[in-house]
Amino acid sequence: MELTAQHINELTQIVGENFIFTDFETRKKYGYDETEDYNFPPHVVVKPENTAQISAVVQLANQYKIPVVPIGGRTGLSGGALSIHGGIALSTERLNSIVAIDEKNLQVITEPAVITQVLRDTVAEKGLFYPVDPSSMGSCFIGGNIAENSGGARAVKYGVTKDYVLNLEVVLPNGEIIWTGANTLKNSTGYNLTQLMVGSEGTLGIVTKIVLKLLPQNQFNVLMLVPFFKADQACEAVSAIFRAGIVPSALEFMERDAIDWSVKYIDNINVTVKPEHQAHLLIEVDGNYPDVLMQEAEKILSVVEQFEVDEVLFADTEDQKNALWRMRRGVAEAVKANSVYKEEDTVVPRYELPTLLKGIKEAGKKYGFQSVCYGHAGDGNLHVNIIKGNLTDEQWQTEVRKGIVEIFELTKSLNGTLSGEHGIGYVQKDFMPIIFNETSLNLMKGIKQLFDPNNIMNPGKILPN
Amino acid sequence: MELTAQHINELTQIVGENFIFTDFETRKKYGYDETEDYNFPPHVVVKPENTAQISAVVQLANQYKIPVVPIGGRTGLSGGALSIHGGIALSTERLNSIVAIDEKNLQVITEPAVITQVLRDTVAEKGLFYPVDPSSMGSCFIGGNIAENSGGARAVKYGVTKDYVLNLEVVLPNGEIIWTGANTLKNSTGYNLTQLMVGSEGTLGIVTKIVLKLLPQNQFNVLMLVPFFKADQACEAVSAIFRAGIVPSALEFMERDAIDWSVKYIDNINVTVKPEHQAHLLIEVDGNYPDVLMQEAEKILSVVEQFEVDEVLFADTEDQKNALWRMRRGVAEAVKANSVYKEEDTVVPRYELPTLLKGIKEAGKKYGFQSVCYGHAGDGNLHVNIIKGNLTDEQWQTEVRKGIVEIFELTKSLNGTLSGEHGIGYVQKDFMPIIFNETSLNLMKGIKQLFDPNNIMNPGKILPN
Repeated sequence: MELTAQHINELTQIVGENFIFTDFETRKKYGYDETEDYNFPPHVVVKPENTAQISAVVQLANQYKIPVVPIGGRTGLSGGALSIHGGIALSTERLNSIVAIDEKNLQVITEPAVITQVLRDTVAEKGLFYPVDPSSMGSCFIGGNIAENSGGARAVKYGVTKDYVLNLEVVLPNGEIIWTGANTLKNSTGYNLTQLMVGSEGTLGIVTKIVLKLLPQNQFNVLMLVPFFKADQACEAVSAIFRAGIVPSALEFMERDAIDWSVKYIDNINVTVKPEHQAHLLIEVDGNYPDVLMQEAEKILSVVEQFEVDEVLFADTEDQKNALWRMRRGVAEAVKANSVYKEEDTVVPRYELPTLLKGIKEAGKKYGFQSVCYGHAGDGNLHVNIIKGNLTDEQWQTEVRKGIVEIFELTKSLNGTLSGEHGIGYVQKDFMPIIFNETSLNLMKGIKQLFDPNNIMNPGKILPN
Repeated sequence: MELTAQHINELTQIVGENFIFTDFETRKKYGYDETEDYNFPPHVVVKPENTAQISAVVQLANQYKIPVVPIGGRTGLSGGALSIHGGIALSTERLNSIVAIDEKNLQVITEPAVITQVLRDTVAEKGLFYPVDPSSMGSCFIGGNIAENSGGARAVKYGVTKDYVLNLEVVLPNGEIIWTGANTLKNSTGYNLTQLMVGSEGTLGIVTKIVLKLLPQNQFNVLMLVPFFKADQACEAVSAIFRAGIVPSALEFMERDAIDWSVKYIDNINVTVKPEHQAHLLIEVDGNYPDVLMQEAEKILSVVEQFEVDEVLFADTEDQKNALWRMRRGVAEAVKANSVYKEEDTVVPRYELPTLLKGIKEAGKKYGFQSVCYGHAGDGNLHVNIIKGNLTDEQWQTEVRKGIVEIFELTKSLNGTLSGEHGIGYVQKDFMPIIFNETSLNLMKGIKQLFDPNNIMNPGKILPN
């Protein structure tokens, strides 16, 4: 539907004239996230100041049946923040305060538009640790992390966003406000509305306040980069490390191309990638006892040396550690700078990684596409970047799609699923029937209908038509 | 409704005549769990063999609108397994196999009627660790743990049941069968049906297969018992230990009466409780490095010695450790043997424990009841055993209830909630409006209605009328 002058007028009454935007430039900007090259401008961008204003905007939208898309840091990779049906883009960006750091209970109460890195740094100053570190943490919002149930490199030891969310204030699609749970570590009090909201990608409501569990900060870590001559052996080494009784704080896999591109793209990285290195594992252990970490590092070394590996690089200084992490985190951007691409977020039980990787490469051969794979191997979470390169638009739409379906069918057969941490959003929703039977999908549609009978809240996401 | 001969006949067709029971003795037996002295016999007890039979029983019940109560180990403390509307008690007891231990991926696939202790012991033989250890683990079923989102002593470090559940096979109230998720450590693929099922107390479906995450087994632990001269100081010490950067693997609080009763009730416990000890903390740290554990134990010692404590007892042998744990686990039974009682499962952020304890004692004075408090203090989870003793039935029903309402209102004001790990079931549902506003409760009722439009699946639980 088109918004009328009357709608704009009413919205202006709520948020004030300085916080409503109908110019094309702003609408275009808020029509992007980081998903491929999609742009879906909303009809209007509003920037409410607080929960009450968000509730009022949503009530109005619900009354007139105008789509509302909650907007965070616009770093999503599945199109969750795209205004595919136009309507109101509701940016949470002004709700950007850390409300309270509760040092006594190891908790933080925050608004949704706090940048994840800022949250991590701020609690770290109090000796506290928020472990979830998506690659985009320098620009993504904590509210977006909750919407997508974001993970990151440390999830292998510390879990994902959902494991830290204790309680949420939510504006529902009819404008009503609830708290989903309590600020407690344990809770067996009714249906788990908190976990229903986490990962619901802004389709069930807008999160306006967040209570997160924190941990005591760990003081030390050891980081090593292990070059493998064979990519499948790198994958095999991943589960061997766990079976040796080690739980690393990060265990990242990168194909040679991933590192190659990243090293070219980022300045001041001093890593030599030999052509015969097919893959690398970046492995970190952390804790409070340096002696223990050295023992664990040695155990890891003895595991990986059972495979065909080249010399292992230990990062000796903070600078070296930062460089290695910059390299790892830079892969996505490097790939993006290189070509149009689609990124799949496959996840399987970790022992199945070699089978998954093999299947991805076979699909590429069969359907004529190149892929660059990297990701959080310790979780079995492999990001598959499919490169457009010289493919025609026709091939890109049809052949590549067939390959993606085969890859997802493979993940399903390995007891895995479509997305480990990026969400389903706009670009993966048609693949949902590969994972869920009709009964499950109907339950999800029923939940959506229950929360949002007018289908105004981020419509057209997650659920297939 | 009454079941007819026709219903019984059709049920017999499904489960076979050896697995259906209408005699009073069996019905009475399956009409109990461990909640106070309630007994609600079902009209019939059935013991299906597998998922297909469960689905058939549920389809039949749905067709005739007969209540179905899923029955596990009958150790629940909130009346979740009581057949309050009669109908069919569906015991899962024949689904008692561990289907597969996946050592490569550190996972186990199990049926619901495996006893939690058996599951823990069986995976331990492979060097794997399922950390969740409710006090009833010697007799409760893992399926019941999922229904109630059970915790236990190790939750403080390792989390509760929900933190280990990756994927569930569920028979829905219409008899259809779904898998809720995938066997992966991360999952951002649609609404989290897995976590919606966990803690739903058998009101949304019957769990028939369970995929759990496991950890590598820890090899060492240190256990100590710290006697405090003042109970509120014991509570204060709890959060001080965390703020010192230690995450103990157990941190249990016991009032003097709790220990006193337990020591009397259980043979061969060699613990001296002096009258001037108002409370004890039982503290465990675990890990793979004995030196580290000794350092952590010393840190804990230096924290608790800032309070008024008597001599700390270190358990030197496995026998001593077992005795201390038997004492802790025996408290509930000792209290039960002593008097009729009501057990509340209050939970607050852990720093609020002293305030909670104080409020409980004040409510007791005001309304004339004695309480014995103990529980998982590291999680802020305090079990409040209200003793009937010499109270009249009238006092027990009216005065004590007023006191309970005040205690729950206090937990709410401290950002806590009704239940940390026992669930709401039958006995706590009327208190739900203390925690949730009408909007939240209506969402929960809507979810129940969506899954179970005929309200046959464990009706009358969790949600207030």
